[in-house]
Amino acid sequence: MGRYTEIRREAFEANIQIPALGLAIYTFGNVSAYDPDLGVFAIKPSGVPYADLKPEHMVVVDLDNAVVDGDLRPSSDTNTHSVLYRAFAGIRGITHTHSTYATAWAQACMPIPVFGTTHADHLAREVPCTEVMSDAMIRGDYETETGNQILAAFKGLSPAEVEMVLVACHGPFTWGVSAEKALYNSAVLEEIARMALLTRQVNPDAGPLKPSLIDKHYQRKHGKNAYYGQ
Amino acid sequence: MGRYTEIRREAFEANIQIPALGLAIYTFGNVSAYDPDLGVFAIKPSGVPYADLKPEHMVVVDLDNAVVDGDLRPSSDTNTHSVLYRAFAGIRGITHTHSTYATAWAQACMPIPVFGTTHADHLAREVPCTEVMSDAMIRGDYETETGNQILAAFKGLSPAEVEMVLVACHGPFTWGVSAEKALYNSAVLEEIARMALLTRQVNPDAGPLKPSLIDKHYQRKHGKNAYYGQ
Amino acid sequence: MGRYTEIRREAFEANIQIPALGLAIYTFGNVSAYDPDLGVFAIKPSGVPYADLKPEHMVVVDLDNAVVDGDLRPSSDTNTHSVLYRAFAGIRGITHTHSTYATAWAQACMPIPVFGTTHADHLAREVPCTEVMSDAMIRGDYETETGNQILAAFKGLSPAEVEMVLVACHGPFTWGVSAEKALYNSAVLEEIARMALLTRQVNPDAGPLKPSLIDKHYQRKHGKNAYYGQ
Amino acid sequence: MGRYTEIRREAFEANIQIPALGLAIYTFGNVSAYDPDLGVFAIKPSGVPYADLKPEHMVVVDLDNAVVDGDLRPSSDTNTHSVLYRAFAGIRGITHTHSTYATAWAQACMPIPVFGTTHADHLAREVPCTEVMSDAMIRGDYETETGNQILAAFKGLSPAEVEMVLVACHGPFTWGVSAEKALYNSAVLEEIARMALLTRQVNPDAGPLKPSLIDKHYQRKHGKNAYYGQ
Repeated sequence: MGRYTEIRREAFEANIQIPALGLAIYTFGNVSAYDPDLGVFAIKPSGVPYADLKPEHMVVVDLDNAVVDGDLRPSSDTNTHSVLYRAFAGIRGITHTHSTYATAWAQACMPIPVFGTTHADHLAREVPCTEVMSDAMIRGDYETETGNQILAAFKGLSPAEVEMVLVACHGPFTWGVSAEKALYNSAVLEEIARMALLTRQVNPDAGPLKPSLIDKHYQRKHGKNAYYGQ
Repeated sequence: MGRYTEIRREAFEANIQIPALGLAIYTFGNVSAYDPDLGVFAIKPSGVPYADLKPEHMVVVDLDNAVVDGDLRPSSDTNTHSVLYRAFAGIRGITHTHSTYATAWAQACMPIPVFGTTHADHLAREVPCTEVMSDAMIRGDYETETGNQILAAFKGLSPAEVEMVLVACHGPFTWGVSAEKALYNSAVLEEIARMALLTRQVNPDAGPLKPSLIDKHYQRKHGKNAYYGQ
Repeated sequence: MGRYTEIRREAFEANIQIPALGLAIYTFGNVSAYDPDLGVFAIKPSGVPYADLKPEHMVVVDLDNAVVDGDLRPSSDTNTHSVLYRAFAGIRGITHTHSTYATAWAQACMPIPVFGTTHADHLAREVPCTEVMSDAMIRGDYETETGNQILAAFKGLSPAEVEMVLVACHGPFTWGVSAEKALYNSAVLEEIARMALLTRQVNPDAGPLKPSLIDKHYQRKHGKNAYYGQ
Repeated sequence: MGRYTEIRREAFEANIQIPALGLAIYTFGNVSAYDPDLGVFAIKPSGVPYADLKPEHMVVVDLDNAVVDGDLRPSSDTNTHSVLYRAFAGIRGITHTHSTYATAWAQACMPIPVFGTTHADHLAREVPCTEVMSDAMIRGDYETETGNQILAAFKGLSPAEVEMVLVACHGPFTWGVSAEKALYNSAVLEEIARMALLTRQVNPDAGPLKPSLIDKHYQRKHGKNAYYGQ
């Protein structure tokens, strides 16, 4: 078994789940899996439909965006992934999609408020939204700057506690301790985004969850005395 | 056949229907089945995906929340279930989900008005919504207090006539004479919640159903001269 | 082959399409098929889930609502069907559902305006909505009065040209030259209802289609010089 | 293999994808495939359900709308297709659907603003919407005039750069270098239309994407230095 077999398998399995979970049509999303020991990640090849993907198609790239193994061109979003792997210690998977409701909030350039416990079960604050990029950044190394915009939005935030972000005008990125967890976070974000819009439609004056309830739900799943799960 | 085989089977079969009915993704919901003779209920284990569940995984718990049989940790919502089984005579199944539209009304902290006969076929008044919990309750035995909030919302209401509730900021709980009926009520509630939001979007001035029509539809299915069904 | 075999088969095949087309959950809808020579119709039995239905379960009823063949109790909406078969010459099938968007318009007590050609391809005017029933009618022979309310809404309208109606506070009824066509009309109505709400959400000032365009689309499918289809 | 076998196969395969992609129910959509060397296109027969279609059913028509091969009547929208094939050099496939969200924008008679990069990945300006047709045009050769309205909306626009349009009060037409690409554009348009409505619901003041970002996303997929795909 080659040294990249495992991250290729992880990235492949998460990528093919994107359409199954309804998170993107055609090729509008990608997942990568990172091996911190080797300092490389496996990522979806650019523009290849999910139905045609095989594990060996996953392109292995280092943190300077150089292809170290694979015959195909990596996702056009590769440089955004590498920025996050360099900056966010401990993450081992990243997912980017254009899922419908999360993208609507991103296009509206608005963070998603904590309206309920479904949200607080996963993160204890609003889903952040980046600033809109400057023209200079857009005309520069665009995908790297997309990563930099995410880092700027995470000043003062912990990427281990908030594993998702909306890139303004574009769509969501999520991450986690594995490619599978990053993908899970994309599905959760889509559901949170949908519930949040519907909540405001039911009651335009709906306010955010009270801090004690946010804390309770986040801690029962993620705190040191967590009692959710096995 | 063991004494818990039947309630485990009932709970198992209802739990695996949650994703099939579109009522929750991942592990965001649970069903329990109660045996009043034994004074115990079987409930989904915490954090286990529906696709991995087997009947023997269901955890058997008594009304003081003590595990009496099973190798796994029961749902983190177990204490809420036991409060309801203790207080609501005659119910034998409880379902909790984070279904999208019912959760949106819960997050909006609003009861669902009776806008049509689909609603009145199942209950003759609005779907109640609990008060938001106090910080003291949240920091106490949270899941037991969730049950207590439901009881407070049912002052003057019959749990045999109203088999569903919205827990403010959180999501729906439903119950019934069996686990299967509790699950049915969760699916019906989701559809009622969706229709109610759409009704107000079609006509923001839509008013509630007139009392005679509520009564007619409720009685034809549930009254002593009911003529719906076989 | 018995004299009722054909209408039972037609009613059965249309009824089991209700959940496949997403027009109702559980038992929230029914189709009947009418034989004008025999003066009877076959209708879904009350409260039986679609998955359990067999052709022989269909109950054969005459136009006075007397069961002439079958072991089960007919749909609780049977009397509404018989009113329509008596009054609307030429129809041979009726469908009633609680499909989500059509029901939202019914609960809003509003007719559906002709916003586009999808609507005009099927009927040349708004989908009518009945008046809300009086208390006396509700407390009388309710299901027969539901049919009477539909007849009242059709004063001046041709049931051959307008094959659908919204019963205020309740939901849609549709009909046609066969059970299959009645079912088709229910699916079309649901799509028209959904498009109409979305159209107003895109543009609250959206007006109805101009008369010449309504006429063009209706006539090219239904006029004497129709050129749609084979 | 006959001279029309290939365009019949292309048209057939794209047509049967319409319901699979959720772009239309029943017969509410059609795709054609054009052979510029032969000057003919193969198009869906009128009113035939997708499930009943076979490749040999596709009707071969020339640019004057004369049937040159096939036993069935071609789509009632045939004349609109021929107008576009005559005027838009280089296109080889056209799709027309009544997909729900795109039709809602068409019924609202509004172009779809560029709210995000999903849109800009496919076209660098809003999705145009035609003018409402005059009564004289409607009463004339209606389907040809529908094509003429599209041409009028494309004054100053390149059909190679903008491969989609909304026909006011009616629904979308899309095209491309193949029938498959035309169908792809219909699915993309439906998703763009849905995201655009949701974006405005999240934030009624959402503005269009800045020009530099539109340009960046369009060029990275379609410009001379495009780096998306293999």
